[in-house]
Amino acid sequence: MKFIAEINVMPLKALLDPQGKAVSNSMKNIGFQEIENVRIGKHITLEIECMSKETAMEKINEACNKILANPIMEGYEYTIKEA
Amino acid sequence: MKFIAEINVMPLKALLDPQGKAVSNSMKNIGFQEIENVRIGKHITLEIECMSKETAMEKINEACNKILANPIMEGYEYTIKEA
Repeated sequence: MKFIAEINVMPLKALLDPQGKAVSNSMKNIGFQEIENVRIGKHITLEIECMSKETAMEKINEACNKILANPIMEGYEYTIKEA
Repeated sequence: MKFIAEINVMPLKALLDPQGKAVSNSMKNIGFQEIENVRIGKHITLEIECMSKETAMEKINEACNKILANPIMEGYEYTIKEA
């Protein structure tokens, strides 16, 4: 079975997010005074071929920890659905 | 009213995504043969202070087109909810 996963990798809440901070400041400067607390992370979509949803989820957790996210600085969450 | 927006900015389907391609290939090399078609974009969360959901959505569209996404190379979608 083929699954499609949508993964969000975000900088941990406790850490500074320089990219988001820079965009927050730019927002103010170009007239978006109402926008604040911008945080920027990665959005990843991928396809995975597995026997069951459970194995797919295990694989995705492993992939996130090994290659897609840096667990020291980033957290991740994902949704998975059948393709 | 304060709203929280979750925005996904992804490279357009028609375009190559070199970052995603590189990760797809790495997946194969480190034992994730079942993963393919990785695409990588940005996930952005922000807070916006507006009178109504409609004005908030207008502002977010404007912000996406002006600063968060490059409409020539990227598409965006978002969800918005009351904080």
